[in-house]
Amino acid sequence: MVLMQHNTMIRQIAVNGERMRADFEALAAVGGDGSGGVTRLALTPDDIHARAWYADRAEEAGLRVHDDDAANLSAILDAADPNARTLVIGSHLDTVPDGGRFDGAVGVLAALECLRTIHESGIELPVKLEAMNFTDDEGHYASLFGARAFVGVLTSEDIFDTRRDNAQLRAALRSVGSDAQRVLGTRRDPESLAGYLELHIEHGTRLEKSHRPIGIVTGIVGRKTHKITFLGQAGHSGTTDMYKRRDALRGAALFIVRAHESMRARYGDGIFSCGDVDVKPGKFNIIPSEACCTVEFRHVQEDLMVEMEREALQIARECAAANALDIRHELITHMPAASMSAGFVSAIESVCEDFGIPSMPLISYAGHAGQFTAQITPTGMIFIPSVDGIGHSPREFTEWEDIERGANVLLQTILRWALGA
Amino acid sequence: MVLMQHNTMIRQIAVNGERMRADFEALAAVGGDGSGGVTRLALTPDDIHARAWYADRAEEAGLRVHDDDAANLSAILDAADPNARTLVIGSHLDTVPDGGRFDGAVGVLAALECLRTIHESGIELPVKLEAMNFTDDEGHYASLFGARAFVGVLTSEDIFDTRRDNAQLRAALRSVGSDAQRVLGTRRDPESLAGYLELHIEHGTRLEKSHRPIGIVTGIVGRKTHKITFLGQAGHSGTTDMYKRRDALRGAALFIVRAHESMRARYGDGIFSCGDVDVKPGKFNIIPSEACCTVEFRHVQEDLMVEMEREALQIARECAAANALDIRHELITHMPAASMSAGFVSAIESVCEDFGIPSMPLISYAGHAGQFTAQITPTGMIFIPSVDGIGHSPREFTEWEDIERGANVLLQTILRWALGA
Repeated sequence: MVLMQHNTMIRQIAVNGERMRADFEALAAVGGDGSGGVTRLALTPDDIHARAWYADRAEEAGLRVHDDDAANLSAILDAADPNARTLVIGSHLDTVPDGGRFDGAVGVLAALECLRTIHESGIELPVKLEAMNFTDDEGHYASLFGARAFVGVLTSEDIFDTRRDNAQLRAALRSVGSDAQRVLGTRRDPESLAGYLELHIEHGTRLEKSHRPIGIVTGIVGRKTHKITFLGQAGHSGTTDMYKRRDALRGAALFIVRAHESMRARYGDGIFSCGDVDVKPGKFNIIPSEACCTVEFRHVQEDLMVEMEREALQIARECAAANALDIRHELITHMPAASMSAGFVSAIESVCEDFGIPSMPLISYAGHAGQFTAQITPTGMIFIPSVDGIGHSPREFTEWEDIERGANVLLQTILRWALGA
Repeated sequence: MVLMQHNTMIRQIAVNGERMRADFEALAAVGGDGSGGVTRLALTPDDIHARAWYADRAEEAGLRVHDDDAANLSAILDAADPNARTLVIGSHLDTVPDGGRFDGAVGVLAALECLRTIHESGIELPVKLEAMNFTDDEGHYASLFGARAFVGVLTSEDIFDTRRDNAQLRAALRSVGSDAQRVLGTRRDPESLAGYLELHIEHGTRLEKSHRPIGIVTGIVGRKTHKITFLGQAGHSGTTDMYKRRDALRGAALFIVRAHESMRARYGDGIFSCGDVDVKPGKFNIIPSEACCTVEFRHVQEDLMVEMEREALQIARECAAANALDIRHELITHMPAASMSAGFVSAIESVCEDFGIPSMPLISYAGHAGQFTAQITPTGMIFIPSVDGIGHSPREFTEWEDIERGANVLLQTILRWALGA
């Protein structure tokens, strides 16, 4: 009976939509172009402005503000027990260049609003709640930098490798009072964590098309990027013997055609893409001596992603051999595939069922902090629709009612998770 | 008997190799880097220096110096009859950036030496001889500019099109006293011409490999260049539906593969090359929206070159359709294919036979002024070996004895042609 009353009370808690909307408008103005576009590159003045604004909102609400050595910035609602574990709810304040108002911002503001709402409700939870802004999610310096620091997978190379000009990243960290020397020690103790939860726009049209306002993320695709360079020999395109040509672009083109065909045929759930070919010397009348392909592999299963990568590299070697070329390849990025916690999936599902909100399970084809947090703590993600699936664009748009509904699903999931923890 | 004595006398005339070599060394120093490389871009100070030096040599030799409105610069040996037709012998003083000492220079210096030798011999010819330096053969501003002006195929667009920034060409012409406004009127009257003859290095290894020091050019390949752009739609490489992608690079790659295969299979004597692909936006995680292929077609038969072009464009359209892409193409250059005059071919052949010099017929796979002069006057070309076929490089090299032998074949051909004219 007591439990039922408690549950009824819990069900009745809801975010303050007006307050959250005022926050949304205020944040959209920071780095905003006045017509929907926002540019808040990580650790640039506009992002620093947004961070200060966020810290002010958190302090106003009586939350504790904390930042770690990777400049991840949190608003914390402490628990009665100082040794309680922490449920982190996060996203990012930074944007891509010429991005939109929703990507990242919605997740941070909803997290903040959930903490304020719970704080105001007077409910005592057995876990701490931490509304976190992860540093440089969008990769102005290094994609998912803050999330990687959080789980402890950054390497010394990520911060101190001089070939990548990381001096700018170090200077940017210093500008917000963080110390690059200590970033590698940022790693959170998994034992101290109760989970990680994030609300984000879908970056796709699956929710919109199926008229379901909530997506329950079951997995985040992994991503590996390579530069695969075909190496031939330059020569006058008119006078070089046709049978002695070592045309690097011809090999690269064959690779692009064959790799697309093979990947599509064999890995229906995987994605292969070649986004660029850089040809040298790149003249009308000179046989290309170098063609460097920028390729990526995505798959929600890490083992299949590695298989795709291995097979594509084999195709590249065959295409090189067929054109008397040499080959060189370099792994540029590895973002691991991640499964979302079954516990979070069912918690979100049951919230949606209880509130009669149509939902559907989804795989995330874009990268998110959760693909790293899943390595050390149960992780869940809630997607809300983005109109026409547009993301990373000033035309990015989500209806306000979808945002408020998403924030309430987030709030109810936090409460269930925290009370069940 | 008189004829036989005359023929014997003609046979005994030979160029002054030492004088020509001194000229060669002096010219190689103009724009030379001291270790074999030469940069004398058309109408730049080094080229203007070379032109002045050339005019001085001509005047010293008692020849008349003339330049036309396209800045083509000639040394003229007049005939007794002021209405006599003119046999033009030419090449070019300009080089590509970081080019060699031989390409172009050898032809101009041999032409000058032939005129000096004939002038000194006292032989009266029934034609005027004109040793010509064609302006901008190598295309610092516009490939074969002087040759195109000479035959009257330059268009107003070549000189006044503001999109191409031709203002620099006009300013350069003005710097050598030529008037861009009058270039289009430069065209020589075909009736006034007795032919065009050029000595040049081979830019290939056919002579070297077959141990024949003289190549008799039978035709010059034509060349058409296009920019073929595949137009798709950008999108997030991770989240865009696999079956709705309009990947411009995928279409371009298929085109490169298929066009190479088809052209090789169907046009054994033709050349297809794709020297560059410019991809937009060219990022790892964005589906390419544009891929612009830089392609060229070469064939010694103009009609087959046009057929190659038509077929490749058809392949491009098919590859675009197969990937839901649009296509745009732009003709950038058209250098016509040309046959050398049968009269010159047999004249050069008979000179080689008479002097016991091994020779072979050759097609020129590189472009030369002769492919334009052939449109208005009988045209012949003599090739001499270039070691390892290297051209447009500081490592370009031809043995001096090959140059002197070539100059003497040129001299004897001029004399036979002139006396037979």
